[in-house]
Amino acid sequence: MTTPDLSALLDRDRANAELFDLLRLPSVSADPTRTADMAATAEFLRAKLAGLGFTARIDATAGHPVVYAERLNAPHKPTVLIYGHYDVQPEAPLEEWVTPPFEPTVRDGRIYARGSTDDKGQAYAHVKGVELLLSQGELPVNVKFLLEGEEEIGSPNLEPYLRDHADELNADVIVISDGSRFAPDVPTITYGVRGLSYVEIHVQGANRDLHSGSYGGAAPNPINALAEIITRLKDDQGRVTIPGFYDGIDELTDTERQMWADLPHDDASFAASIGVPALPGEAGYSTLERLWGRPTLDVNGIWGGYQGEGSKTVIAAKAGAKVSMRLVPGQDPERITGLISEYVPTLAPAGTTAVVHPHHGGRPFKFDLNSPYNLAANRALKRVFGREAVFARTGGSIPIVAAFNDLLHAPVLFVDLGLNEDAPHSPNESFAVSDYHNGILTSAYLLQELGAPTSAE
Amino acid sequence: MTTPDLSALLDRDRANAELFDLLRLPSVSADPTRTADMAATAEFLRAKLAGLGFTARIDATAGHPVVYAERLNAPHKPTVLIYGHYDVQPEAPLEEWVTPPFEPTVRDGRIYARGSTDDKGQAYAHVKGVELLLSQGELPVNVKFLLEGEEEIGSPNLEPYLRDHADELNADVIVISDGSRFAPDVPTITYGVRGLSYVEIHVQGANRDLHSGSYGGAAPNPINALAEIITRLKDDQGRVTIPGFYDGIDELTDTERQMWADLPHDDASFAASIGVPALPGEAGYSTLERLWGRPTLDVNGIWGGYQGEGSKTVIAAKAGAKVSMRLVPGQDPERITGLISEYVPTLAPAGTTAVVHPHHGGRPFKFDLNSPYNLAANRALKRVFGREAVFARTGGSIPIVAAFNDLLHAPVLFVDLGLNEDAPHSPNESFAVSDYHNGILTSAYLLQELGAPTSAE
Repeated sequence: MTTPDLSALLDRDRANAELFDLLRLPSVSADPTRTADMAATAEFLRAKLAGLGFTARIDATAGHPVVYAERLNAPHKPTVLIYGHYDVQPEAPLEEWVTPPFEPTVRDGRIYARGSTDDKGQAYAHVKGVELLLSQGELPVNVKFLLEGEEEIGSPNLEPYLRDHADELNADVIVISDGSRFAPDVPTITYGVRGLSYVEIHVQGANRDLHSGSYGGAAPNPINALAEIITRLKDDQGRVTIPGFYDGIDELTDTERQMWADLPHDDASFAASIGVPALPGEAGYSTLERLWGRPTLDVNGIWGGYQGEGSKTVIAAKAGAKVSMRLVPGQDPERITGLISEYVPTLAPAGTTAVVHPHHGGRPFKFDLNSPYNLAANRALKRVFGREAVFARTGGSIPIVAAFNDLLHAPVLFVDLGLNEDAPHSPNESFAVSDYHNGILTSAYLLQELGAPTSAE
Repeated sequence: MTTPDLSALLDRDRANAELFDLLRLPSVSADPTRTADMAATAEFLRAKLAGLGFTARIDATAGHPVVYAERLNAPHKPTVLIYGHYDVQPEAPLEEWVTPPFEPTVRDGRIYARGSTDDKGQAYAHVKGVELLLSQGELPVNVKFLLEGEEEIGSPNLEPYLRDHADELNADVIVISDGSRFAPDVPTITYGVRGLSYVEIHVQGANRDLHSGSYGGAAPNPINALAEIITRLKDDQGRVTIPGFYDGIDELTDTERQMWADLPHDDASFAASIGVPALPGEAGYSTLERLWGRPTLDVNGIWGGYQGEGSKTVIAAKAGAKVSMRLVPGQDPERITGLISEYVPTLAPAGTTAVVHPHHGGRPFKFDLNSPYNLAANRALKRVFGREAVFARTGGSIPIVAAFNDLLHAPVLFVDLGLNEDAPHSPNESFAVSDYHNGILTSAYLLQELGAPTSAE
């Protein structure tokens, strides 16, 4: 193709400054005290897109608002819907941040801030990619932006939104950048995501906290009971013990297992990257297979009794835990949530009762490795990275992918711009400055390639 | 004996008003922000005792101060040292209190307030008992008060205090009222207390919190690991699995087992009193044996990962728990703490490390059922309750009892004035108004009986 070198035209300082302004807004969707910040973040994005000549607006939902914008000036060309989310994970534990989560800071070529990679940085790269193309003329395709504010809490209101705006959101392909490349020098196209079932387990013992001296030895202890329940949810092979949990799983193909076995992965360095001496998990599967193609069960939070200074000799009345299960194609989140809800009460030790409260779920998803969109993405990535992309899956969940498929009937194309080292969801989340800039170029080239789907480089 | 009916002479309204003033002082020894309240509480007691003609003072320690007072006007009579503590448990969880913990309120004949029974109410009953006797003349024995402010945090500074003041504190018997009677109509003399080993277990996984999607299936989870460690600390018979834990235990005698079997105890109503369907514990022992004569292990608090609103899909870097073991005669707290500190690290699942941090301990203790002091106490209780006392043990720990024995070489006499229903250490701790008044009379009669140890009623 004959296009100017967009890389030379990118104003990197300005691109950084704009992203920093976006990152300063503490858009934590799970925090009920931050609704005003959520609204301010939506308005920031609406105004930016309006400034680029998009028809842009903020649509209210039952929860946090959706930013929708469109620029449809490419007749007879494909329509590309770019999805992203402007909400971020809670920043806790705050004390572990080297610099404040909402004061973006560059250290060693990385932008440190909550949301820098998940997903503000990756979503804004597309906004800047579009701006870069517009500096050269009209867009090569019709572009729609759908930026939601509830991805980190399970997108409870996006499905109804998609339902109500299905015609308006109609597109040939949906582009999502909300994940990690396989490695810094490895452009990656992700063709599958795991699903999620997230629940809370509440265990009740006595009707009040008890003195562990007066009652210890006879009173049921809900914390010990919760520990036993959690332990019994997995066997010594790392397999989940919930009856029916593995039923109907779409097993990994030999092709997939071979493709992943060929990837440049090394358990030792992976373990070293998170500072652990071992990588425990389900027996009989490689690390990549366990991360991408097998379901898991992890406790994400636990509480009970006295957590304060010093020592309190109490037997608590209740204890609780947040438990999530990552699911793979063939597992339905509602069915799995139902199974654990039935199973956990049967594990409650004598004298205690256990109940499961569902939080949210997300369907696992897998799509065609050889779609023209994947091929176009591969060409775009080659122009940025100088090499073919690898086809991976992600262990993470993007619950609304299935909704896109069901309601908009369009294929989803994942172009991951981040890295696992970005530490999304952790203190000191970051996004490499070079990845942000490459992401802007990837977005621009991708729209060009999608506008000329049959062209060759 | 020919003494006036002290019951008719007791000004109950004034006794209540004074105790309420004492209970309003938030003397939480574990709370570093309450040191001023601790000092104010000590001064309240010093001033009261000085007003009764005692030589009273406040002695500083490395922690919270000790209140010491003496009135030695009974030559050739025994010297009685009355021990109590003016510090109280933390009030958390505050939201579960029907009325504020430091605003004493009477409902249904009970005084609701933190410390009402443990131990301000029981200790102050002795102060008022002495006052009642003084209204009739000189005390029948020499009386010393030792009121400490660190019992709820393990009395870290009392042992040095006893060492430094051993001569001054010299006594024939040490009276302690800091426990529960067997039942409302059953006067109780306690001849043994359990010991305590209290530790924290800290488990470390990765070097940072991880996204459970990106890492779930391969990253070690310290919360799941902690649950497994806790579960493995007991077997399916409710026995503690720590190697050597039961070595050298002074087993219950047939006499004791028979004496307790004869007590009016009913498992069903005991279970109903705390709202549980079962009373799990060590197999092969009755409930009373498990509460008074057998060691236990209970988790008193646990934490890890995300405990906030909504759901956070994180694999935490670390998790922790507070664990206490109640000990019986024959078990040394330091030895037991050493055993669990060696054992827990060996239970850490692959990819995690576990360490034990000791908190505090207390030695178990048991003393002579037939001492003249027990017999005097039995006579005093009979004058108040009209029936013989029962001889029980308590599952609780009073760590400094052993220190009294070692350093002051005096026998300890437990005269319990409270009830388990008082819910010490729990929200809505209370003390029956009638128990407080009976406690004042019990204290007065006890001093009379100790002053005439050979007399018969």
